[in-house]
Amino acid sequence: MNYMETLGAKAKAASHVIAVANTADKNAALAAISDALIRNTDRIIAANQEDMANAQANGMSASLQDRLRLDESRISAIAKAVLKVQALPDPIGEEIAGWLRPNGLRIRQVRVPMGVIGIIFESRPNVTVDAAVLCLKAGNATILRGGKEAIHSNTCLVQVMREAFEASGFPADLVQLVEKTDRETAADMMRLNGYLDVLIPRGGASLIQAVVKQATVPVIETGAGNCHVFVDASARLDMAVEITDNAKTQRPSVCNAIETLLVHKDIAEAFLPAMKTRFDAHQVVIHGDETVQRILGDCVIPVTEEDYFKEYGDYEIAVRTVESVEEAVAHILKYSTHHSESIVTESMENAEYFLNHLDSAAVYVNASTRFTDGEEFGFGAEIGISTQKLHARGPMGLQALTTMQYRITGTGQTR
Amino acid sequence: MNYMETLGAKAKAASHVIAVANTADKNAALAAISDALIRNTDRIIAANQEDMANAQANGMSASLQDRLRLDESRISAIAKAVLKVQALPDPIGEEIAGWLRPNGLRIRQVRVPMGVIGIIFESRPNVTVDAAVLCLKAGNATILRGGKEAIHSNTCLVQVMREAFEASGFPADLVQLVEKTDRETAADMMRLNGYLDVLIPRGGASLIQAVVKQATVPVIETGAGNCHVFVDASARLDMAVEITDNAKTQRPSVCNAIETLLVHKDIAEAFLPAMKTRFDAHQVVIHGDETVQRILGDCVIPVTEEDYFKEYGDYEIAVRTVESVEEAVAHILKYSTHHSESIVTESMENAEYFLNHLDSAAVYVNASTRFTDGEEFGFGAEIGISTQKLHARGPMGLQALTTMQYRITGTGQTR
Repeated sequence: MNYMETLGAKAKAASHVIAVANTADKNAALAAISDALIRNTDRIIAANQEDMANAQANGMSASLQDRLRLDESRISAIAKAVLKVQALPDPIGEEIAGWLRPNGLRIRQVRVPMGVIGIIFESRPNVTVDAAVLCLKAGNATILRGGKEAIHSNTCLVQVMREAFEASGFPADLVQLVEKTDRETAADMMRLNGYLDVLIPRGGASLIQAVVKQATVPVIETGAGNCHVFVDASARLDMAVEITDNAKTQRPSVCNAIETLLVHKDIAEAFLPAMKTRFDAHQVVIHGDETVQRILGDCVIPVTEEDYFKEYGDYEIAVRTVESVEEAVAHILKYSTHHSESIVTESMENAEYFLNHLDSAAVYVNASTRFTDGEEFGFGAEIGISTQKLHARGPMGLQALTTMQYRITGTGQTR
Repeated sequence: MNYMETLGAKAKAASHVIAVANTADKNAALAAISDALIRNTDRIIAANQEDMANAQANGMSASLQDRLRLDESRISAIAKAVLKVQALPDPIGEEIAGWLRPNGLRIRQVRVPMGVIGIIFESRPNVTVDAAVLCLKAGNATILRGGKEAIHSNTCLVQVMREAFEASGFPADLVQLVEKTDRETAADMMRLNGYLDVLIPRGGASLIQAVVKQATVPVIETGAGNCHVFVDASARLDMAVEITDNAKTQRPSVCNAIETLLVHKDIAEAFLPAMKTRFDAHQVVIHGDETVQRILGDCVIPVTEEDYFKEYGDYEIAVRTVESVEEAVAHILKYSTHHSESIVTESMENAEYFLNHLDSAAVYVNASTRFTDGEEFGFGAEIGISTQKLHARGPMGLQALTTMQYRITGTGQTR
């Protein structure tokens, strides 16, 4: 057994314990984790300071250093988030469906844990705790692989959680950190078939693509978001401006922010100048087609086809005018990453066309794409946003961390 | 664009047409396919005879030749199976869930097609039609990659389906055959990200493992079945014999047949001799532990740990005695492929323990594992049996070929 297989075997054994634990016991363990985080604040900060010292020595940017930093208030926020997960309904045990066969067999479809969930991430250390407790609440063991730059923080946070599990009568191996942060070990993790039931990458496009390309275990692809707003001819101008502004500028770095704005040609003359006034407040860089250039003037950079594929992630947008909802839909089908799209319209017919013809995870009528989020959907928390069609789509709450099992009871039936 | 990308782009374009087609139009296309198969019987048989001639020239075994052969009655059976799929309820459009958020956003979760489904198979040519029509009924385009030995049959069957689609007003590219049967093209198919929404291998263990290892597109793993029956101390002897006999000998080559029999030590003396009498009718080879050897005598081959991992797929079985239901469950957790397991018992408590503690796709009480099958579950048809936990588990009917989409309607909401 190599290093990752050893972790995998331990996680599998622990997963069989948590899979049959009742909700009260799981909740007690979550409360114990929340308490332990508070109680061990000084220890966690001390570990984090080792990472911070390395970050400074290595010349990490100020914004990345800020993401890495843990202080008393951030640890308190992490501990509170654990209690929020504790308060969510337990998804396990739900009878999803049940039926009786003509031969008297009773078939029940029951929601059960996934088993062992792997998370590869490069984000802030709070993900370490968030991911582990969500997996636990859904009855799973977790193997976490964070970035090298947060190794001391992550090691300490995982150790605190392991101690809390043991104090609650659960195996410590419900959460394990991959302490070897080299690429080879990461590759071993991506090929941990037989132990890992699913692997979820959380981070930038290059991490996600590496996982998709290398993994032989089942993966849930997350993240990439080339989202669109289409302002239809019948749109209410004020609503179109508010929605577009919110979808582009409220937080342009996130995956549910829009990258391209499509505008029906019949409303372009009225809408675009009003929109530009709003965009100017954030110095939004506009790449526009010829009509957009004509209406808004020299400030518009001529748009290229490449722009339509781009996830700017910044105060920058591509703007294209179209002749119809059909043309808008065709544009989105061609360039979108199938994350979130919105139409602003007063036409029932065009709204229905837009909803029915797009194959994105979330499709909106008269609302901002920024709502594609576990909290905003009412899931209480999310482990990520799936951009694939298999298993889970859009914001993934606890249910995405479960699977189902057929339980069949008979009286001696044979074929 | 390479050859596979060209197929992928055509399939994606066709998938957008079928995704929004109504049930009546899809059913008309299915009826047209069924008719066309009958009408083109001579043409299909002629193509099949080319494959049969090659098979004879290449010295293909008689049983494989039989699997390859198409005649009038087999083509008629394929055509009838198409009508059976036509009669199934359309899964698309179902509103799975819907709720209203505090801010007035209405969120609906709607069942939609997967998009483009790839099938790699090495089975009989009837799979070509079965797989395509199931995918179509669920609103998907399909790319099929069959074995080299059936290329003439498959080319003809796909051509007949394509003509029927066009005659029904649908794009012919709803079904495409990968006509290049080399390994490189197969590898390209497994990496057709952006076009293939899911790839389902149907065939032997080596094909499935090749797909799992090489694919970068989402895969549904199917097939491997190391299934178990556990005869508990309280089992009714006659029922235990019937179920074990059926699970082992009714069709030992299939994945839901059992490979290992676990017997509670307290019932072993009474059960094993009765079971052996049944097994003898099929000359079942028994690998047993020391207790089994003592009870049944010299005919028993001493069992090794390797046997417990084996999928014999034949009239051969491993038999182990255990002290308790807990020991039986521990054995299954360790050696099973998590396909199907059954307990024969009159104890409510042990039945519940068995159901709750195993993480296999289908778990039975007092019934044969042979029921893990789309027809037997009442799905009308199946595209395969999933042995992974992501997306679909156990027999996969039409629903497994769909995904869902969030449709959100608002009145101008922003964050």
